[in-house]
Amino acid sequence: MTLTLTSDTNQQTLDLDRAHVFHSWSAQGTLKPLVLAGGLGTRVWDFEGTEYLDFSSQLVNVNIGHQHPAVIAAIKAQADQLTTIAPSTANLTRGEAARRITNLAPDGFNKVFFTNGGADANENAIRMARLHTGRDKVLSTYRSYHGNTGSAIVATGDWRRVPNEFARGHVHFFGPYLYRSDFWATTPAEEAERGLHHLERVIQAEGPASIAAILLESVPGTAGILVPPPGYLAGVRALCDRYGILLIFDEVMAGFGRTGRWFAFEGYDVVPDLITFAKGVNSGYVPAGGVIIPDAIAADFDETVFPGGLTYSGHPLAMASIVGALDAMADEGIVENAARIGREAIGPGLAELAEKHSLIGEVRGEGVFWAMELVADRATREPLPASAMGQIKAALVGRGLLPFVQDNRIHVVPPCTVTSDEVAEALAAYDAVFTTVQGGHA
Amino acid sequence: MTLTLTSDTNQQTLDLDRAHVFHSWSAQGTLKPLVLAGGLGTRVWDFEGTEYLDFSSQLVNVNIGHQHPAVIAAIKAQADQLTTIAPSTANLTRGEAARRITNLAPDGFNKVFFTNGGADANENAIRMARLHTGRDKVLSTYRSYHGNTGSAIVATGDWRRVPNEFARGHVHFFGPYLYRSDFWATTPAEEAERGLHHLERVIQAEGPASIAAILLESVPGTAGILVPPPGYLAGVRALCDRYGILLIFDEVMAGFGRTGRWFAFEGYDVVPDLITFAKGVNSGYVPAGGVIIPDAIAADFDETVFPGGLTYSGHPLAMASIVGALDAMADEGIVENAARIGREAIGPGLAELAEKHSLIGEVRGEGVFWAMELVADRATREPLPASAMGQIKAALVGRGLLPFVQDNRIHVVPPCTVTSDEVAEALAAYDAVFTTVQGGHA
Ligand SMILES: Cc1ncc(COP(=O)(O)O)c(C=O)c1O
Ligand SMILES: Cc1ncc(COP(=O)(O)O)c(C=O)c1O
Repeated sequence: MTLTLTSDTNQQTLDLDRAHVFHSWSAQGTLKPLVLAGGLGTRVWDFEGTEYLDFSSQLVNVNIGHQHPAVIAAIKAQADQLTTIAPSTANLTRGEAARRITNLAPDGFNKVFFTNGGADANENAIRMARLHTGRDKVLSTYRSYHGNTGSAIVATGDWRRVPNEFARGHVHFFGPYLYRSDFWATTPAEEAERGLHHLERVIQAEGPASIAAILLESVPGTAGILVPPPGYLAGVRALCDRYGILLIFDEVMAGFGRTGRWFAFEGYDVVPDLITFAKGVNSGYVPAGGVIIPDAIAADFDETVFPGGLTYSGHPLAMASIVGALDAMADEGIVENAARIGREAIGPGLAELAEKHSLIGEVRGEGVFWAMELVADRATREPLPASAMGQIKAALVGRGLLPFVQDNRIHVVPPCTVTSDEVAEALAAYDAVFTTVQGGHA
Repeated sequence: MTLTLTSDTNQQTLDLDRAHVFHSWSAQGTLKPLVLAGGLGTRVWDFEGTEYLDFSSQLVNVNIGHQHPAVIAAIKAQADQLTTIAPSTANLTRGEAARRITNLAPDGFNKVFFTNGGADANENAIRMARLHTGRDKVLSTYRSYHGNTGSAIVATGDWRRVPNEFARGHVHFFGPYLYRSDFWATTPAEEAERGLHHLERVIQAEGPASIAAILLESVPGTAGILVPPPGYLAGVRALCDRYGILLIFDEVMAGFGRTGRWFAFEGYDVVPDLITFAKGVNSGYVPAGGVIIPDAIAADFDETVFPGGLTYSGHPLAMASIVGALDAMADEGIVENAARIGREAIGPGLAELAEKHSLIGEVRGEGVFWAMELVADRATREPLPASAMGQIKAALVGRGLLPFVQDNRIHVVPPCTVTSDEVAEALAAYDAVFTTVQGGHA
């Protein structure tokens, strides 16, 4: 008996999916999801032998690439020993995962509260901030995504918040985004300075004594890989210090190698008060996330019960995948590879594409975390319309490239293990497709 | 190289835990968590050879027992094929898991939205109910637990809600609990009737047109395994129909075998509008949960985008563990075993204990889902004080039994695979410990 579920055709999987699977963030009636059956490294494939180069890392989570043997081996070894155990027990694999994560974190961050993903990581960080400060409000940016649960979705800034506003205590502000500045700024320095002025005005107007935390993606991801201008994050840190507000960095997408650093915030010489993570910590091989907690906040709950928890906090199988992934990433220099590939292959390659194709309005990013902003007109920066984006997406998939398409942007977000040959292959696909579309629109 | 993390002593694991792991629902300073390293069936053990009989099923999730070989094999086979893939794709294992779950559900429940656990299952069911009805409020009982995220924790009735009230639209009412009736009832029929009167008064006073859903654990679990009196759930269904309110059954703890039925609500001849699940669906071998959706509600999102989602929705490794667990449960008659053990071993055994020990105020339950309510005085039903409960817990652990202790109750909740010999062993341990405590208190 073979245990692996397999099929001769994609159609069977598609039929089952359409009959029984309800999908995230979608109108279900018109879906025709891509069938995927297996993967290795930067490649995935279906049941009929079609292969794709994965420049999405799925939901920007497969940082170590698909089916990394060391992570698979760690999961299988743990599966043989003990798959699940209650969070109230002490488990060696959980301790080892927590030790590795705190070793990577700044000094003084010694404890980890584990969750199942990014949303519940943010929920619990917000909970800790409120209890630590005795204040209610959480400030976050309009251009952000923090997860789909009660508080996380209302902390979220993008359209997904709007049908879900059932949590109180959330206030939104505008973050820096020079290409489409909300502050009439023309230089990075001006964008940072004006962004900080705007944030301070919001803090003052909301009442500093009512604000528990500012929750920020260190580098906003889904919103467009909005690399913060120099000085901005340090300025936010200073405002937090001035007003007694905690700074939470959401490193769910930006963390664990994506930017070419273990944590994205390391590039900005700023230390937050709480760190949330998920995705890259174990490349999503088993659902996991968490909050990294400094001593000063952990101590609040030495005598007082922490009022949060979940059945699968510190789940052994998830913990084994974290241990396996972090060890392999360190041993194989995978974070360094992401930095180098960003510097030597993706950055220069996208710059070259931008010179050639006027539909590229801006290219920005670092590591394996880049965005191309596509525009109908470079002068007005009018976004390329959805129909054209749809055409581009279909054409890329048709050429065997899985792209990450969001609004008028293509996020170039391969695994951190990507090679320069694979980058060249992807660049050639973008180039060919842009040439067609540019032609069609000229 | 062995990949399995192991140790010669428990101390190493305990030290790592105390240094780096932040625990659910606890004051961290005083914790001395039990070290557990492995398990099989109803047994778990530490690194030093101490074995425990698990009558907690951890957090009442390991329905199939620890390390069931078929589930482990399914996880390992999937790990070799494809651990993770984006929810927007179509995946065969996900389709197979959804098909199995919908096959077990009532007619017309044909789609599953997968989450990582119970909290986010309830979050998304609440979301669907609000969007389906265009109404805001969710009614749930004071004696309930629904999860730790934004809306789920405010839907929760117990003390854990109180420090977390940051979601709006939640109203609580009193559910039936004859042993400590909030309605001055003296018979099950009276408790049901008065409970329904109370609920209808709350509905009327809140304004029926403002109420999206009533969210109920079919059999409230953590709150005390409060088996509903005959007629109550049917009465709630009738009230929902009368006022156009959706009925959501939270089957996270009660579902998938725990009561000796696939779904607890099958015992009450009532069909809800939405079903949430987690725990028993895969015995928690990989974090997973979800919402089972009937056609009428699924259709709302055929043309309209469903505004919810998460990175690990329909995670392949989790889906493989669901397929493995549900197939093994069906093939091996595990749900039937739970029913039989409840009827033939646990029920009669606990009744006998109750005759012998006056500190047992009430015994209630079915399947492998039972509670003993411990009292200082049978006449006044005054709960046994926390200190005595602590003593009892320690004594049971000392005798090699892992109990599930909650307030003044011991929940008797072994895996559904438990044998009558193991039940006899547990009953002997309860008996011996009650004898000591009774003596101490007499
Ligand atoms: C920055 C950020 N935070 C939080 C989340 C939510 O994570 P999850 O989908 O695991 O709940 C995401 C997911 O994309 C994210 O990108
Ligand atoms: C009835 C019920 N609903 C929801 C939950 C929350 O599940 P999770 O801990 O997986 O978020 C639980 C957990 O104990 C539960 O018992």
